[in-house]
Amino acid sequence: MERIVVPPREGRAARVRRGQRVRVVDLEGAQVGDLFAFVAEDVGEYASAEHTRVAVGRLFPRPGEAFVTNRRRPILRFEADTSPGIHDMLLAACDPTRYRGLGVEGWHASCQENLQTAMASVGQTRVEVPQPINLFMNIPLDAEGGLGFAPAPSRAGDHVELRAELDCIVVVSACPQDLVPINANGITPLAIELLD
Amino acid sequence: MERIVVPPREGRAARVRRGQRVRVVDLEGAQVGDLFAFVAEDVGEYASAEHTRVAVGRLFPRPGEAFVTNRRRPILRFEADTSPGIHDMLLAACDPTRYRGLGVEGWHASCQENLQTAMASVGQTRVEVPQPINLFMNIPLDAEGGLGFAPAPSRAGDHVELRAELDCIVVVSACPQDLVPINANGITPLAIELLD
Repeated sequence: MERIVVPPREGRAARVRRGQRVRVVDLEGAQVGDLFAFVAEDVGEYASAEHTRVAVGRLFPRPGEAFVTNRRRPILRFEADTSPGIHDMLLAACDPTRYRGLGVEGWHASCQENLQTAMASVGQTRVEVPQPINLFMNIPLDAEGGLGFAPAPSRAGDHVELRAELDCIVVVSACPQDLVPINANGITPLAIELLD
Repeated sequence: MERIVVPPREGRAARVRRGQRVRVVDLEGAQVGDLFAFVAEDVGEYASAEHTRVAVGRLFPRPGEAFVTNRRRPILRFEADTSPGIHDMLLAACDPTRYRGLGVEGWHASCQENLQTAMASVGQTRVEVPQPINLFMNIPLDAEGGLGFAPAPSRAGDHVELRAELDCIVVVSACPQDLVPINANGITPLAIELLD
């Protein structure tokens, strides 16, 4: 097994072969992980929230179902989840503009920059910034369509396990959001584990 | 007032100046309109569902609130709505792959192609296909996050009115989806009305 630690506030990319399993582990608990997946041979095709919602008829897939690309091909099959099963696929990755809007002066780490830096590390310097798969992120939805920001309920060691259905590049960002209460323990590391 | 009729199953683009109002009218009722908006001077910036959800804290803006771009700038302010107020911003535009998946053999009109054709008509031959603003589209959401396809409740003449906050190109597609029951009256025309 190969293990890549994603330091707090940073992102990492991993190449994943079709058929290989990838785990995203919340090492210390209550940490959101923004997950992205791009087709290795053409990064213009990537895991797409809006196409996945059509494919599964739900806001988020259940174990056994697949995330699909913007060309409606399964890319990651959601195989297992030891967390309480709370995840989000509605909210954009945080970015410098988001932090400026929250009153931050100067630079603040963001999932968008983490994605771009991680993709550049594997030679991909121009990528779209898709809607992420926000693992462990707790966005309660009320009956009128209102969205809240609540602490991630994941515990230390909780993980999701996905199987690649296409050769892909997976990016995980340990979300640096410290101005809304989604990361309840402070910003902590994640791990990407590549299994056979 | 300039009026552009969007024939059934087709799309049309309109250039809208900052400050100008644009109405999308459901001429015969129960017709979904996929709406897209691109910044005129850089079509890599466009109305983004996931950034709008963060900005308004809801699945869909209410009148008075704005749709924002993938750079978090307001692009269209939602000013008025004479329809029952049921719209969607969760589901991807239909495309040829979607229709193949529904069993269609051969060509079927789609909102994705309509977007691309409409943008080409204003000289934009390479554009992203964003998550659309699916006007009048009725996607009931249950308490477990399940999504349904229900008939559009809009009546003949119902419209939404938006004010451009940036010079933009707006595209409206009269959604050709005739395999799930969202367009209850058959596929019918829409109109784009440009007011001062």
